[in-house]
Amino acid sequence: MHEFKTTYPDNNYTVHVGHGIFNKVMKHYTSHYNEVFYIVDVTVYGHFRDGILKDIEDPILIDSGESAKTFQSFMNLTENLLEQGIKRSSLVVVIGGGAAGDAGGFAAAVTLRGVDFIQVPTTILAHDSAIGGKTAINSSHGKNLIGAFHRPSGVIYDLEFLSTLPESEIMSGFGEVFKHSLLNSKEAARSLMAKTAFGISIDAIEESIIDGIKTKMDYVSSDEFESGSRKFLNLGHTLGHAIEYQYKIPHGQAIILGLYAMMYISNKTAENEIFDLQKYHEYFSGLDYPVGLLGEMDIEQMIDLMRHDKKNIKNEAIGFVLIDESFSPYFTELNISTLENYLSGIKESI
Amino acid sequence: MHEFKTTYPDNNYTVHVGHGIFNKVMKHYTSHYNEVFYIVDVTVYGHFRDGILKDIEDPILIDSGESAKTFQSFMNLTENLLEQGIKRSSLVVVIGGGAAGDAGGFAAAVTLRGVDFIQVPTTILAHDSAIGGKTAINSSHGKNLIGAFHRPSGVIYDLEFLSTLPESEIMSGFGEVFKHSLLNSKEAARSLMAKTAFGISIDAIEESIIDGIKTKMDYVSSDEFESGSRKFLNLGHTLGHAIEYQYKIPHGQAIILGLYAMMYISNKTAENEIFDLQKYHEYFSGLDYPVGLLGEMDIEQMIDLMRHDKKNIKNEAIGFVLIDESFSPYFTELNISTLENYLSGIKESI
Repeated sequence: MHEFKTTYPDNNYTVHVGHGIFNKVMKHYTSHYNEVFYIVDVTVYGHFRDGILKDIEDPILIDSGESAKTFQSFMNLTENLLEQGIKRSSLVVVIGGGAAGDAGGFAAAVTLRGVDFIQVPTTILAHDSAIGGKTAINSSHGKNLIGAFHRPSGVIYDLEFLSTLPESEIMSGFGEVFKHSLLNSKEAARSLMAKTAFGISIDAIEESIIDGIKTKMDYVSSDEFESGSRKFLNLGHTLGHAIEYQYKIPHGQAIILGLYAMMYISNKTAENEIFDLQKYHEYFSGLDYPVGLLGEMDIEQMIDLMRHDKKNIKNEAIGFVLIDESFSPYFTELNISTLENYLSGIKESI
Repeated sequence: MHEFKTTYPDNNYTVHVGHGIFNKVMKHYTSHYNEVFYIVDVTVYGHFRDGILKDIEDPILIDSGESAKTFQSFMNLTENLLEQGIKRSSLVVVIGGGAAGDAGGFAAAVTLRGVDFIQVPTTILAHDSAIGGKTAINSSHGKNLIGAFHRPSGVIYDLEFLSTLPESEIMSGFGEVFKHSLLNSKEAARSLMAKTAFGISIDAIEESIIDGIKTKMDYVSSDEFESGSRKFLNLGHTLGHAIEYQYKIPHGQAIILGLYAMMYISNKTAENEIFDLQKYHEYFSGLDYPVGLLGEMDIEQMIDLMRHDKKNIKNEAIGFVLIDESFSPYFTELNISTLENYLSGIKESI
C-alpha cells in the first residue's frame, strides 16, 4: 500500500492507495468516531454490496453521475444525514465516483457547518477529484458553481473498485491521468503514451494514476485555495469545460480535446514546436477520443462559455494554462481576438 | 464612529459602529472591487430605499425573517448571483436582519466556493449574528443546521437602521444584549437592568449593544470554530432554542427564558444564590417576557429537543453553559435525570 501525506502547515491528511485496502484502512479511521454515516454511489453499491462493502449497514445511496449534484439531491442528502442524527463529532464516508464525491463532500462540508469526512474514490476520474478538498454541486448556470473547500480527514483509494468500470469510464478517467503526466514531465507523458498506444487498460495505467495522485497532492498542498500554482491543474480545462458543456461529452474526453487545443496554443505562443501535434492527433484519435469535434466547434459559443467560467475573472481576456519550452506549465491571459485566431487555427488543423 | 478589529492571526476584519456611517464606510470597501452585488432584506429596503440605501441599484431582495433561510430561498439566491455574473473577485454586501445575514452570508460562502462579503446588520439581534462568521440556512430538522464558517471582510453596523424597528424586534434583540452583559460582568448586567427597568429603548441600550459587540468579538476571535470558549456564547441557548422551536416565540424572547433557567441551574449547581431569581423574574415579567411559559413547559419534550441540538454531542448528557460564583461562565454536562429535576424545579418556581 502507498501512503501519501499532504504538506499543509497543519491538519494534514493521508491518501492511501492499494489493492484490497478499504476495510483495513477504514477501521483505522472509524475507530475514532462514535457515529459513522456512509454515503454510497448507487452503482458502486450494486457492484460491491456483497464484496468490499458488505460490512456497511444502511448506507445513504446517491445517484451516480451528475444527477447527484442537483440542489434537490443535495437537500435530500443533508436532510437524510440530519434525520439519522448526525452530530458534529460524527464521521461521513463518501464512496463513489467524482460526482458522488463532490456532492457527498459538499454535504459533509455544510451539514452542521462541517463534519469530518473520508473520500473513497471508486473511479479513475475520482483519483483527481477526491484529492484537494474541493466539493461542489451544480447550478443551472454551470458545473461546480456552488461548493466549499473542505479537507477530507483521509482518502482511501482501493484500486479494486476500478475492476468493474465500463470502457467509457476508463476512457473518461484517462483524461485527468494524461493531464497529470503532462504536468509531471515530458518523459512521464511519453511513457504513458507508449503504454497505451494500442488501448487503455487499468493495469497499464495504474502506475501513472499513482503518479498523478502525487502530482495533484503537490499542487494542492502548496496552494489550497487556488490563488496561484493550483491553477495549473486547470491545464486543458478552459476549453475542455466549454466543450463538455456544449457537446455533452464525458468530462475526461472533453479534457483530452482541451489538452490538444492547449498544445496547439502552447506551440503558437512559444513560436516553437513544443508538441508534435500530428503525433498527438493520431494518438488521441487512435484511442477513439472525438478529436474531430474540434473541427466543428462554434468559436463564438466556446468563447462565450469560457468567459463565464468561474475561474475566469476578466471579461476582456481569458485565463489559460499553457506549457512552455522547458515543459513547465504557466498561466497567461489571452485576449479574445487572439483566442479567436487560435481556435480558427485549431479548427482548420483538424 | 467605533471601529473594532478581530484578533485572528491573519485575515482580520473590522466592525464599524456608528450613526449614519453606512455610505461612507461602504465606499471604502467597494472601491477595491470591480463588481458589487447587494442582497437586501425586503423590509429594510422598503424603509430605506429613498434614504440610506438610495445609491443601491438592482439589489437582490430576500425575505425578512426565517423564510429567507429555506433551501428554496438559498437556491434562488445563489442562482440569482450567478445569473448576474458574480465572479470570485466580486464582493457581496448583505443588508438586513439576522435571517437575511445568515442566508446571504451562506450564499456568499458557497457561491463559487466562497466570495468576499460585507455584513450590514439592521436589527438589534443582528449585532450578535453578523459577527463571528457563522452563516446558515434551516433544515426541516432544526434551525441553522446547514451552513458554513465564512469570515466577512467587514461589518458595518449603522445604528440608523434601528430607528424603524418594531417593538417586537427590540424586545427580541434585547435577549442577546442581555446575554452579552451577563458574559461581560455582574456590573454590566446590573447597569443594563437599571437602564431598562421601565422599558427598553434603543437610546438606553445603545451603549450595551456596543459593549455586546466587543464581548462577542473577544469570544469569536479566540475560538473561531467553537471548539472551546466560543461555546460560552451559548449561554441561555440550550433550553432557549428548545423553547423557541416548541412554542414558536421570537428568538430573543426564548433566550431570556433560557437565561432565567440558566440562573436557576447555576444557583443549584453552585449550591449558592448567585442570582436573585425573584428579582430577575420580576424584571423579565415587567418587560413582558413570557416567563410564565416556563411554568407550563413539557419537560420530556424540552429534553428531547436539547438532545438533538447540533451543539450537543452526547446522548446521555446535555452540555450547558452556566455562571459560577465569581460570575464567570463555564461549560458543564448535566445528565438527563439531573436536568429533569432542575426543570421540574423551575416549573414549580414560576
